Amino acid sequence: MFFEGSEKKIEIIVNSDAKCLRSLGKTYWQSLVNKANADIISVVSNQSCDAYLLSESSLFVWSNKFIMLTCGGTTLVDALQAFIESYGIDNIAFTSFQRKNEYLSHLQKTTFEQDIKSLRKIIDGKAYRLGHLDSHHHFIFHSGKPVAEKTTDKTTELLMYHIRGEGARYLRSNVQTTEGIRALFQLDAILDGFIIDDFVFAPFGYSMNAIKGEYYATLHITPQENSSYVSFETNLDLEREHPHILTRLINCLNPGCWDIVGFNTQPEGHFARDVNCLSHCTLSLSTDVEVLFRYYQHVTHETQTPEAM
Amino acid sequence: MFFEGSEKKIEIIVNSDAKCLRSLGKTYWQSLVNKANADIISVVSNQSCDAYLLSESSLFVWSNKFIMLTCGGTTLVDALQAFIESYGIDNIAFTSFQRKNEYLSHLQKTTFEQDIKSLRKIIDGKAYRLGHLDSHHHFIFHSGKPVAEKTTDKTTELLMYHIRGEGARYLRSNVQTTEGIRALFQLDAILDGFIIDDFVFAPFGYSMNAIKGEYYATLHITPQENSSYVSFETNLDLEREHPHILTRLINCLNPGCWDIVGFNTQPEGHFARDVNCLSHCTLSLSTDVEVLFRYYQHVTHETQTPEAM
Repeated sequence: MFFEGSEKKIEIIVNSDAKCLRSLGKTYWQSLVNKANADIISVVSNQSCDAYLLSESSLFVWSNKFIMLTCGGTTLVDALQAFIESYGIDNIAFTSFQRKNEYLSHLQKTTFEQDIKSLRKIIDGKAYRLGHLDSHHHFIFHSGKPVAEKTTDKTTELLMYHIRGEGARYLRSNVQTTEGIRALFQLDAILDGFIIDDFVFAPFGYSMNAIKGEYYATLHITPQENSSYVSFETNLDLEREHPHILTRLINCLNPGCWDIVGFNTQPEGHFARDVNCLSHCTLSLSTDVEVLFRYYQHVTHETQTPEAM
Repeated sequence: MFFEGSEKKIEIIVNSDAKCLRSLGKTYWQSLVNKANADIISVVSNQSCDAYLLSESSLFVWSNKFIMLTCGGTTLVDALQAFIESYGIDNIAFTSFQRKNEYLSHLQKTTFEQDIKSLRKIIDGKAYRLGHLDSHHHFIFHSGKPVAEKTTDKTTELLMYHIRGEGARYLRSNVQTTEGIRALFQLDAILDGFIIDDFVFAPFGYSMNAIKGEYYATLHITPQENSSYVSFETNLDLEREHPHILTRLINCLNPGCWDIVGFNTQPEGHFARDVNCLSHCTLSLSTDVEVLFRYYQHVTHETQTPEAM
């Protein structure tokens, strides 16, 4: 059973005088999520944010910003185009669209090149690939327009591949529960005070959204033996205030390799000695946002079993 | 300018009482090469082998064996099916079909999965992937039928990516010549006594076939800055008799990473200290052939420049 966990992601910041995004309501967001071929499973809210758990990932809506992540064969770029058309391009301060390293690009409905070709018909923007094509890499498109108010949000994305050991075995088992997974990661401790909304898929797979004030965190697990992929993302400051979170997640899942993408932050975990940063790339967006891409791998000689097809 | 250098490869061994493959003649082989969407550029022969240089790689024909390599958007599996149908499956002792790590799988006309689905309609066989999907990997299909006579041919394939330095700059320049490239690699020394047939493509790119008795060597260079790929393949014994060849090629091109695939051989170059084997995989084919796949990379922290799209 193969599932392409690697996400696509939209981030939109709207002008301060534009319509509040939360006021658009659940029906609006449901319809936008459907454009990407995903569905809303549940929602939790606090005074700042509505966090929607999707059939394939997550949507977080603040009054002036939203983030939408989808994985598998979803068509997130369609949702982005629909949003720009319905909300009005003049009301949008910042747009970014990311596609993460994919296992099997030919199974995707479109390529990143095709996506940016469509996007450029309605919005100016620059696009980049961070990392080599034959290795882990990351695509990003962002609107060229400078943001009136400087964006200082720090966001960290951790993408883990080839999870191994006891944690991985539990996540592939049929006895897993939301409580068990929360305990595995000590989520109550690392996301202290957060409202947590999570879901275990059948036969396996886990999604979690968490919010606390303006902060969010999201965790998505596709544990399949030969294509395991776990992503974690948050706007908590993992560089200075919560450096143990990356270390905790990595120690828990013992991934063979992982990527870190940082926006305005350069978080470093405390990794084992045999871990090496094989690729490092930074990019300054014209909007004063600094993007960091790092690809880490255990350098220990890995003996693999051939995969029968 | 993007070109998918990574090859596909067929190897066929026919029964000792079957029709001599060389006697099928150039017209037959021309027509087979056309099935893969390639063309013959030139041919050299000795008492054992006809070596055809193709518009996209190479074909070597011995009396009881042939090897055909093609790259780019070629459809090598169509040539393999046409050969099996015209020559007769009962006359074939061993079939293998390989596809190497591709940069952009969605630009290929078919996937390996589709290829083996077509092949299995006319020939029984086992298929494997060596190496992780999100990293360098190698696909191989081979006929399950045991070979009557044990195959002890040693074959080494060296696939180099991200070539750098003076050699790489020369190969990307417009002053390159076949003589200059032979000198760069000291081909006359490392392939002492071989008949060499080579060709420089416009604006760049190089292909070489070489034969000496039963031995062959072939070198293909696609030097493009952001997708450079150089492949070398030979049935010389690089493990015991010619260990310096791998080292020479790697030192000349200083690739960021490379794969070694060995059939009945486990060659090791003498690499720099900061080179690590990131993936190692072996496979015993039912035909007593041992396949080795190794992926090497410089572990030095590589700072990359974002690639604008």
